[in-house]
Amino acid sequence: MGTITKALDLLGFFARDRAEIGLGEFVRLTGRDKATVHRHLTELAENGFLEQHPETRAYRLGPALLRLSALRETLFPVRKLLQPIVFDLSEAVGELAHASLLQGEVLSPVIHADPSLHGVLVHFDIAEMLPLHATSSGIAALAFCAEDTRAKVLTRPLSKFTDQTISDPAALKAKIEQVQRFGVVSMSGTFDEGVTSVGAPVFGEGERVVGSLAVAVPTVRANPEKLRDIAQRLLVEASHASTALGGVFPRSFDTLPPDWGDKTLAQQVI
Amino acid sequence: MGTITKALDLLGFFARDRAEIGLGEFVRLTGRDKATVHRHLTELAENGFLEQHPETRAYRLGPALLRLSALRETLFPVRKLLQPIVFDLSEAVGELAHASLLQGEVLSPVIHADPSLHGVLVHFDIAEMLPLHATSSGIAALAFCAEDTRAKVLTRPLSKFTDQTISDPAALKAKIEQVQRFGVVSMSGTFDEGVTSVGAPVFGEGERVVGSLAVAVPTVRANPEKLRDIAQRLLVEASHASTALGGVFPRSFDTLPPDWGDKTLAQQVI
Repeated sequence: MGTITKALDLLGFFARDRAEIGLGEFVRLTGRDKATVHRHLTELAENGFLEQHPETRAYRLGPALLRLSALRETLFPVRKLLQPIVFDLSEAVGELAHASLLQGEVLSPVIHADPSLHGVLVHFDIAEMLPLHATSSGIAALAFCAEDTRAKVLTRPLSKFTDQTISDPAALKAKIEQVQRFGVVSMSGTFDEGVTSVGAPVFGEGERVVGSLAVAVPTVRANPEKLRDIAQRLLVEASHASTALGGVFPRSFDTLPPDWGDKTLAQQVI
Repeated sequence: MGTITKALDLLGFFARDRAEIGLGEFVRLTGRDKATVHRHLTELAENGFLEQHPETRAYRLGPALLRLSALRETLFPVRKLLQPIVFDLSEAVGELAHASLLQGEVLSPVIHADPSLHGVLVHFDIAEMLPLHATSSGIAALAFCAEDTRAKVLTRPLSKFTDQTISDPAALKAKIEQVQRFGVVSMSGTFDEGVTSVGAPVFGEGERVVGSLAVAVPTVRANPEKLRDIAQRLLVEASHASTALGGVFPRSFDTLPPDWGDKTLAQQVI
C-alpha cells in the first residue's frame, strides 16, 4: 500500500456510527505505527480532508470534501441526474431504491430514497461500500464491467458476509451469465441477512458500466411476483439513468421468464 | 510539501473551466516530474478520488468524493443547515449570497444562491477558494479565527488580486479591528474588480469561527444604503447560521453607524 493510499484509507474508517475518530482509535483500527498515522492525519487535516474537533482534537471528515464533490457535481451532475430516477423508482415500487457508482472493485452509494410505506424498512448506510460479488448492485456492475476487473474479482477469495454470500467463483460466474442475459439480477440475504435486492447496471459514455441502480426489500415482503415487477421497472429506470449519463442501455436482453425470481427466494429457504 | 499534500494538491487543479486534466497537463501545471505525477494520479484513481475518461484517459474528480461528502453531510449536515439561510438571505437582499467554511488559511465555498433579478450578476465560482485577506468573507473569518492563524496570515506577504487588495498588514489589522467591533465587513473590488461584498462570521461549537456568510453585488449597484441594509440582514442571518451549527453569535457588537459602508465605496473611487 502506497503512502497516499494509506492516508486516503484513513478516510474510509468514518461511518454513520463513527463520526469522529481520535488518533489512538486510528492507531488501533489500522494497526499502524502511531507516528506515521499522526503524520498522515496532519497532512489530511492541513488539506481540509479532515478537521479536528476544537476541544477533543478528534478527527472528522473535512470541508474540502464538500467543495470537491460540489465541483464534481457541477462538472458531471451525476447525483442531480440520478436523484429523480431513484426517487421515481422508489415511489413506483414502494421500497428503498439506491444508485451507486463503480469505484475500482467496489460500488460507492451516491443516492437513496425510501417512501417508508412499511413498518419494516431496509437500513441503508450511505457510508458502506458495496462489494461486487455479494450484492445485486455489485453483480449487475460486475457482469458488464471491464474484463480485467471481473477477472480480478473472480480470482481473489470471495469474502463471506452471510451464509448466503456466493463464495464459489463458478457459481458467481453462472450468476454473471444470467445477468448478462437478462440485464437484471436478484440476490437474497447475500450481504445483509433478511434483505433481498434486485439490481441493474447503469451505463455511461463509451458504453462502459458506471454503476448500478437497485431496489432492496426485507425478504419477508419479497415474493417472486414482486421481485419480477421490481425487475421490470428497474430495467426501465436503468435505461433512463444510462441515457441521463450519456450512455446506452442495451436493448438486446432476453425477456424475463415468468418464473424469474423464484430461484432467488428458493435459495434463501434452503 | 509532503507526498500526501502533493497528491491532494492535484485535486485542486480542477475548476469549472477545467473539468478534465490529462497527465501531460498535470505535469505542465505542477512543474513536477512526470513519473511522480503519474504515480500520484494512479493512487488517487485507485482510491476513487479521480476517475479516468474511458477513451481519452484524462482524469476527472472521482466518485469517492460524492460518498465521503454525503457521509460528512449525514454526520454534520452543514450544507443542509446553511442552505435555507443562504437562500433566504439572497431572496431578502435580491443579490448573490454564499456560505463558506474555514479550511486552514482559506475559505472553501459550500453553498450559493442568487435570485438573478438583475441583468448584471456576480459570477460565483464554487471551485474557487477565497483568500482570507482579500475578501469580505475572509476578513470576517480572519477577525474571529484562532490567534495563530491570524498571526500567520498577517506575517506572510499579502498577495494582490486587484489594485484594491489590502497588501499592507497595518491596514489589514485596522480593518480586522473594525470587523471585531461591528461583526460585519464590506470590501469593494479587493478580489474581483467590480464586485463589492459584505461578509459576517459564522460560529460553531466551542465558540470558534467555522466560516462566513456573505453577499456579493456588482459595484455599479452598490451604494452606502444598500450595503448597510445588506449588513443588517447579514448580522441576523449569520446569527441564525451560528445557532444552526451549534455556535453562538456574539451580541456585543456595536450598532452600525449611519455612515457605515461609505468608506468602502469611497476607497473604490480613489
